[in-house]
Amino acid sequence: MVPYQLYKQHMQKIADVKNALAVLQWDQETYLPAKGASFRGQQIATLSELIHQLSTEESLGNLLEELKAKEDLADNEKRNVALNWEDYNKQKKYSSAFVRLLTETISKSFHSWIQARKENSFAIFENDLHQLIELKKQETDILGFASHPYDALLDEFEKGCTVELLDKTFTGIRPSLKNLLDSITTRNQVEDSFLNQFFPRQDQWNFGMYLIEQLGFDKEAGRQDISEHPFTTSFNKNDVRITTRINENDFSSMTWSCIHEAGHALYEQGLPENEYGLPCGEYASLSIHESQSRLWENNIGRSMEFWKYQYSKLKNFFPEQLGEISVNEFYEGINKVHPSLIRTEADELTYHFHVMIRYELEKLLIEGNLTAHDIPAYWNEQYAKYLGVRVPDDKKGCLQDVHWSHGSFGYFATYSLGSFYAAQFFAASQKQIPDLSEAIENGNTQPVLSWLRSHIHQYGRMYTSEELCRKVSGEVLDIRYFLQYLIDKYKKIYQF
Amino acid sequence: MVPYQLYKQHMQKIADVKNALAVLQWDQETYLPAKGASFRGQQIATLSELIHQLSTEESLGNLLEELKAKEDLADNEKRNVALNWEDYNKQKKYSSAFVRLLTETISKSFHSWIQARKENSFAIFENDLHQLIELKKQETDILGFASHPYDALLDEFEKGCTVELLDKTFTGIRPSLKNLLDSITTRNQVEDSFLNQFFPRQDQWNFGMYLIEQLGFDKEAGRQDISEHPFTTSFNKNDVRITTRINENDFSSMTWSCIHEAGHALYEQGLPENEYGLPCGEYASLSIHESQSRLWENNIGRSMEFWKYQYSKLKNFFPEQLGEISVNEFYEGINKVHPSLIRTEADELTYHFHVMIRYELEKLLIEGNLTAHDIPAYWNEQYAKYLGVRVPDDKKGCLQDVHWSHGSFGYFATYSLGSFYAAQFFAASQKQIPDLSEAIENGNTQPVLSWLRSHIHQYGRMYTSEELCRKVSGEVLDIRYFLQYLIDKYKKIYQF
Repeated sequence: MVPYQLYKQHMQKIADVKNALAVLQWDQETYLPAKGASFRGQQIATLSELIHQLSTEESLGNLLEELKAKEDLADNEKRNVALNWEDYNKQKKYSSAFVRLLTETISKSFHSWIQARKENSFAIFENDLHQLIELKKQETDILGFASHPYDALLDEFEKGCTVELLDKTFTGIRPSLKNLLDSITTRNQVEDSFLNQFFPRQDQWNFGMYLIEQLGFDKEAGRQDISEHPFTTSFNKNDVRITTRINENDFSSMTWSCIHEAGHALYEQGLPENEYGLPCGEYASLSIHESQSRLWENNIGRSMEFWKYQYSKLKNFFPEQLGEISVNEFYEGINKVHPSLIRTEADELTYHFHVMIRYELEKLLIEGNLTAHDIPAYWNEQYAKYLGVRVPDDKKGCLQDVHWSHGSFGYFATYSLGSFYAAQFFAASQKQIPDLSEAIENGNTQPVLSWLRSHIHQYGRMYTSEELCRKVSGEVLDIRYFLQYLIDKYKKIYQF
Repeated sequence: MVPYQLYKQHMQKIADVKNALAVLQWDQETYLPAKGASFRGQQIATLSELIHQLSTEESLGNLLEELKAKEDLADNEKRNVALNWEDYNKQKKYSSAFVRLLTETISKSFHSWIQARKENSFAIFENDLHQLIELKKQETDILGFASHPYDALLDEFEKGCTVELLDKTFTGIRPSLKNLLDSITTRNQVEDSFLNQFFPRQDQWNFGMYLIEQLGFDKEAGRQDISEHPFTTSFNKNDVRITTRINENDFSSMTWSCIHEAGHALYEQGLPENEYGLPCGEYASLSIHESQSRLWENNIGRSMEFWKYQYSKLKNFFPEQLGEISVNEFYEGINKVHPSLIRTEADELTYHFHVMIRYELEKLLIEGNLTAHDIPAYWNEQYAKYLGVRVPDDKKGCLQDVHWSHGSFGYFATYSLGSFYAAQFFAASQKQIPDLSEAIENGNTQPVLSWLRSHIHQYGRMYTSEELCRKVSGEVLDIRYFLQYLIDKYKKIYQF
């Protein structure tokens, strides 16, 4: 067998174990009986260990080194080898002792986070979080960095992402967002209480299933289930699973999480099948993944064009609840801007303050200019400063996200980048697809999906986020697209 | 770490991967989207390969050899080491080439079996089945055997089971069953057409969930789902899953498969937790497993005592369908004896002819006195001879079971042994539990479960089937218990 085939075979074996692990995790969030949790944790740990072993096998390193020297590989093959070589060397940097300590600390932290949330007290989480932050600081030394230690962690979630780049991006957008927010909050508030009527579970489920099918989700190559926190997981492009949650007194909760996860799923279902297990068969980056979910959730799923068609369909599901509400009222209600405490419930504008607060906080923690103990005070102060809201308790404050308890420092920024990319991509699609608005107004979003498939999905991880952005839109990421999108939308709704 | 701990750790690692594999298989039968099948097959193959590697690692062999020589181990520890040593040496006998060839042939055979069923033609399956039989014959040489080659395969499913033993058992019971069947078929037939009214899906599901809870199935440590063929799988004693199927025009299909699988599940939920991954944490044998499912399904689930209480509950679920049917009529209907074509739909008596026909046939195939080509003719002849039924086509004949396409030769006998053990165990429980009939008549089957837990479940694989039988009933397996159970039941119903 030629070396590239041997390498591919090894990577596909790793992918099979990774995907088996993903099935265990999916099952854990959807169908696992209560008492099954502890053994499941053990099974997941064992598979993780096997994956680490397979990913750092000497024979794989030798193969990659041999392939790196070859000049007759195709471009995608070169890209696969280069990315796996990078990953291999990164994995090799970790000692087993460090990995074990980190895994144990994460496991402890997750449990104390759960407990802290239950008792609504950050103090219960503080000690474990402190240890975790110390380990993450050590990790920045293990991984190495050019200018700022936080760069090493950001790079884990978004290759090439740095403090310099994010500082510039967030500093650029913060004042404009603040101005926009001020303009909005001084206007009359829009009415959205109709979203909080009683919407029966089964009807919501049926509408959600209708929606994801409308968007192009292939139900033969995936499924939707219920979980506490909505997520998307993929075991291969022919088995992509999303989950949603249903709150019978809040129509928004299910609907836009459904569209959001479907956006992620459409990306996964569009990745190249023949690159299974290899980088070019994977998503480009977390921010690009998020751009797909947000483009569908917001740029399309909160647009007037979309609801012009879908609102009459929706009314068939809920004639009593929405009979008296016009499509204009509906559109304004679902786009209401209102500073609030919980990131995942935030509107499109204030959302980014939630992210920026976390970003600045993580930076300070990794720099060592703040410690775990300082988090609640800092958090509450920033929420007052940027969003004008008083944080009543830790559960609605610094305990709201699971990320830190998982050891994920450097993740949040990709959420904002996702929105920024989404706006730029959607603007490009509007330019490039003839009569797009008209198609969407007629209930046809297929042109968008086709455009995303051919401009983004089919490339997998062939290009970096930046290269892809340039390929798609002709420019690097430019926050003005996102700002303009918000201004256009809110000027009409809030009439300023 | 002491050697026993090291060994235990290694076995638990293998168990974790085996259980991950079992989750993949469970998912495949319940929730896998249509297009996900091919990648899932690949993921299952990769995990199987990893399990084989881990099970045959030199270091494990060395540990086992060291432990075998130790005299200070507890009895359960000795038993674990002995069984794993046996298994290790057996695994080692297989060359990778043979394993690969067998796996490939099984995969091919399974697909041609599916195809053969679709087109209702054994000829499509014949060639692959022929190759599979040839490989199984080779396997008997690889494994070795004392007297009959089929013994090597029987031993795979039921340790210690031999042609000599089964010939004796089946020869002993065949004439009595035939006499009993003749007595019944000359009498008036009982009425059971009320079981084939329309029983709506959701109501059947609800009744099934009610039933398994009544029997003591712990829903916090397991769940029930829907699949095409009902089965039980366990990822550990705290996560035991069963499936059922629902036919809206046949009330029996769901009900007794539900009780049957619950019986398997109650056993798994009762295995010792602290022996996870080790033989003593596993079921004793397939026939003992089957004894549990059949004891609940038949000895309890088709008894007058059980339905005296449960029938009024059942009527609340289906007042229209069963309002006019008395508990006596119901009891007789669900115990109707009627020679038929399909094993899984057979009554308690004729069931064993289905098994004996398959047993004799497999023996002839492995001996080389019949070939795959001869199967349909032999099959049809035997069904005419023992059950007096004409087999109209292969689908209702020799293509009905999946077992051969999986390479499982030697499995069927454990089904009959299960019924025989069940009768003997139930007779023992009737002797040992005071007022058992009264308890069951009052809707309380907990005494049976407690008795099974303390006499069978808690021991895992500490004892062989035979040792366990002796421990539970004071005797070795004696088919007279089963015969007496049938005679008592049918004499009353058919009045002879």
